[in-house]
Amino acid sequence: MKTVKELKQEVLEANKQIPELKLAIFTFGNVSAYYPELGLVGIKPSGVSYDKLKADDIVVLDLEGNIKEGTLRPSSDTPTHLHLYRHFPDIGGVVHTHSTHATAWAQAGRSIPVYGTTHADHSPVAIPCAPIMSEDRIMKDYEVETGLQITEYLKAQNINPEYCQMVLIEGHGPFTWGATPSKALYNAAVLEELAQMAKLTESIYGGQKNGLPEYLVQKHFQRKHGPNAYYGQK
Amino acid sequence: MKTVKELKQEVLEANKQIPELKLAIFTFGNVSAYYPELGLVGIKPSGVSYDKLKADDIVVLDLEGNIKEGTLRPSSDTPTHLHLYRHFPDIGGVVHTHSTHATAWAQAGRSIPVYGTTHADHSPVAIPCAPIMSEDRIMKDYEVETGLQITEYLKAQNINPEYCQMVLIEGHGPFTWGATPSKALYNAAVLEELAQMAKLTESIYGGQKNGLPEYLVQKHFQRKHGPNAYYGQK
Amino acid sequence: MKTVKELKQEVLEANKQIPELKLAIFTFGNVSAYYPELGLVGIKPSGVSYDKLKADDIVVLDLEGNIKEGTLRPSSDTPTHLHLYRHFPDIGGVVHTHSTHATAWAQAGRSIPVYGTTHADHSPVAIPCAPIMSEDRIMKDYEVETGLQITEYLKAQNINPEYCQMVLIEGHGPFTWGATPSKALYNAAVLEELAQMAKLTESIYGGQKNGLPEYLVQKHFQRKHGPNAYYGQK
Amino acid sequence: MKTVKELKQEVLEANKQIPELKLAIFTFGNVSAYYPELGLVGIKPSGVSYDKLKADDIVVLDLEGNIKEGTLRPSSDTPTHLHLYRHFPDIGGVVHTHSTHATAWAQAGRSIPVYGTTHADHSPVAIPCAPIMSEDRIMKDYEVETGLQITEYLKAQNINPEYCQMVLIEGHGPFTWGATPSKALYNAAVLEELAQMAKLTESIYGGQKNGLPEYLVQKHFQRKHGPNAYYGQK
Repeated sequence: MKTVKELKQEVLEANKQIPELKLAIFTFGNVSAYYPELGLVGIKPSGVSYDKLKADDIVVLDLEGNIKEGTLRPSSDTPTHLHLYRHFPDIGGVVHTHSTHATAWAQAGRSIPVYGTTHADHSPVAIPCAPIMSEDRIMKDYEVETGLQITEYLKAQNINPEYCQMVLIEGHGPFTWGATPSKALYNAAVLEELAQMAKLTESIYGGQKNGLPEYLVQKHFQRKHGPNAYYGQK
Repeated sequence: MKTVKELKQEVLEANKQIPELKLAIFTFGNVSAYYPELGLVGIKPSGVSYDKLKADDIVVLDLEGNIKEGTLRPSSDTPTHLHLYRHFPDIGGVVHTHSTHATAWAQAGRSIPVYGTTHADHSPVAIPCAPIMSEDRIMKDYEVETGLQITEYLKAQNINPEYCQMVLIEGHGPFTWGATPSKALYNAAVLEELAQMAKLTESIYGGQKNGLPEYLVQKHFQRKHGPNAYYGQK
Repeated sequence: MKTVKELKQEVLEANKQIPELKLAIFTFGNVSAYYPELGLVGIKPSGVSYDKLKADDIVVLDLEGNIKEGTLRPSSDTPTHLHLYRHFPDIGGVVHTHSTHATAWAQAGRSIPVYGTTHADHSPVAIPCAPIMSEDRIMKDYEVETGLQITEYLKAQNINPEYCQMVLIEGHGPFTWGATPSKALYNAAVLEELAQMAKLTESIYGGQKNGLPEYLVQKHFQRKHGPNAYYGQK
Repeated sequence: MKTVKELKQEVLEANKQIPELKLAIFTFGNVSAYYPELGLVGIKPSGVSYDKLKADDIVVLDLEGNIKEGTLRPSSDTPTHLHLYRHFPDIGGVVHTHSTHATAWAQAGRSIPVYGTTHADHSPVAIPCAPIMSEDRIMKDYEVETGLQITEYLKAQNINPEYCQMVLIEGHGPFTWGATPSKALYNAAVLEELAQMAKLTESIYGGQKNGLPEYLVQKHFQRKHGPNAYYGQK
């Protein structure tokens, strides 16, 4: 059985990957992990730089946000992370960054179209951009509402969070998730690459264009994630 | 009490951060520090490359520009730094760079709109671009006039230099400041990131767009800098 | 005579060059080598990250795709590689990546025009973009069809694969080849640079423009590859 | 008095700076040095990669192109370098690269306008783009003609090569020069930065714009290079 010590270590290492993968400068991003067998989440403390972070700085909470271990304040985005763990089945990691290109799409208020197989390999739909939150919502519990904005928008758009593990919040930036913190980080880095490629695609094409035909999207997504997937090792 | 030796060491280390943070190539930037208890400013010598800089090369001056220690010429931008120390309350560091994207906004003569929460986390207003200086001003004491151009423009725009610690000079480039040289450097790196994101945002959106609604700007700025801030550690 | 062990080692080292040359993140690219004296191809296993790759992970197959050595699944793109070895005379290496700018041109569905001598030094014609594959083809043996799409398109366009060793597949990304895996990798990195330069060229010019005059293209291509070439060492 | 051994060593080190300054990939650039007291030029051999280059690989020639030391073929661009040494007074280094942004301006066939003080610090005029060469010239001794194209165009434009030490050749790329190879390299890196900034400036502004007013250009150029310069150390 996994331990709280392992949880802290895994969260530590995942957060240190953020600057290595060039997903954020200074403290502009955070990774959390959820160990369902412990019912506990570990997350980066707020405003601490990655290079100074130690395992014992990681804040450990239950899914309702009660701090179980740690003396530092957790990331201010913690309620959003917890909301996603409560609503998305079987996820073990959540990542929030302000990575440059993904944030630019969020700031432009646009979903990222499926322009190529690099995208289709990871999501069969456009990366959704949940609309900017109303003043009402922001005046409430802002970070909880951010989580609600994500889960409600995906539901309204009929997007399965198992198949599309990335989202943009208009005017803010990306959240990604996955079975593990490492998978959520992978998704954050892939999203940044997709965002850059899509921007360049429109620039080279001369404007917005149609996405990939659905048969090609499905071919790529299924060869990697479908029941007869043949990408990767068994 | 802090010493002149510490002043030189802090200025040395801050200047060496400029190329590490990719804020300038060769000698295209400088950091100074002001120790109010000593009434002294330390600044990079002019035209010396960062990798060759030593603590004893740092030039020490009083706020009126009289050299107190050091045998090298101070940065040609020194009068601008001194002007800012004299006019902005409680600042301990000033940074000038020619960082690529911030300089491009300055060259385009445009303020950087508040397009997202990354920006609102650091400034509640657009990063102001003070207009190009008139021939009259440039023929006078150019570097003092540059300082005046900054302080007068911020005053005219009713911008509090405590809340917005960044400015562009049209046709030239950015200046940033802060409580310490390290905070001023942080601001210079954040500005470069905001400048890049804003450029990409317009490119993805297809032109200039409205900024973030004021309620969201205030939410983010206040959660980090307001009286009830909950970002970072107490 | 070369050995299977050498084949594996060469393929291992070539694949490790992919992230060093910044041609792909994670597992988004693969290199193979063909040793005609052995009649064998070595290729990266599917979904294994470059930093964990070992020589014994390399999968060895004959040109018909029968696995001769190795316990891992070969890259899902293997049938495309094998098709190119069967159809292009005298090539010893094939590279597939999703490098950012080359993929963006592929996603935009455009060939890369010959805008400068950097391009003409490496190919006397625009880098062709083979059109997106029909649903029929994709429903068949997709990766074999990708190979056919390349070879048929080059033939239809009358492009000699000895002179232009690069191609884009619309909606997907680039394939390159060469006498050795190292030359194919070189071509992949050159293609990424040409793709970035061409994008910037149109951005600076203000749209698409005419390519280089043919006499200048030929001058550069011939001084490097013609019968009287004088670039490089004898 | 300087020796041939020093010449080779200086040329070796300068060429190794090309990839460090990110001015070229593979073999896409070359540096030469001229020692007037010896009447000799040292230059990179053609097609040899920077990491494999050794001091004894450097080819030593007189100004007429007669090889004095070295067994390898000199850079194919050697006649252009020699032409510049013969025509520009007091220069000791020449650099040719295919750096990404400078080459993109050359491919777009545009001079780089003086959009900011970063530019004015280094050149009081737009970086000239000499027009594409006619078929006649290219059919002659191509690399000598490239040199002529540079010197004739600067003369026609009344540009003093002491004040503007950079040029673009339309459809090809940049050449820079200076008192030493190190200064010529510095100019090559500054040019790449100016090219990137100018491209971003137009993108942010929304098209081409007027350059800096002449009084500001002169202020910056003169404070660094004029008779009363006060930038740098005495």
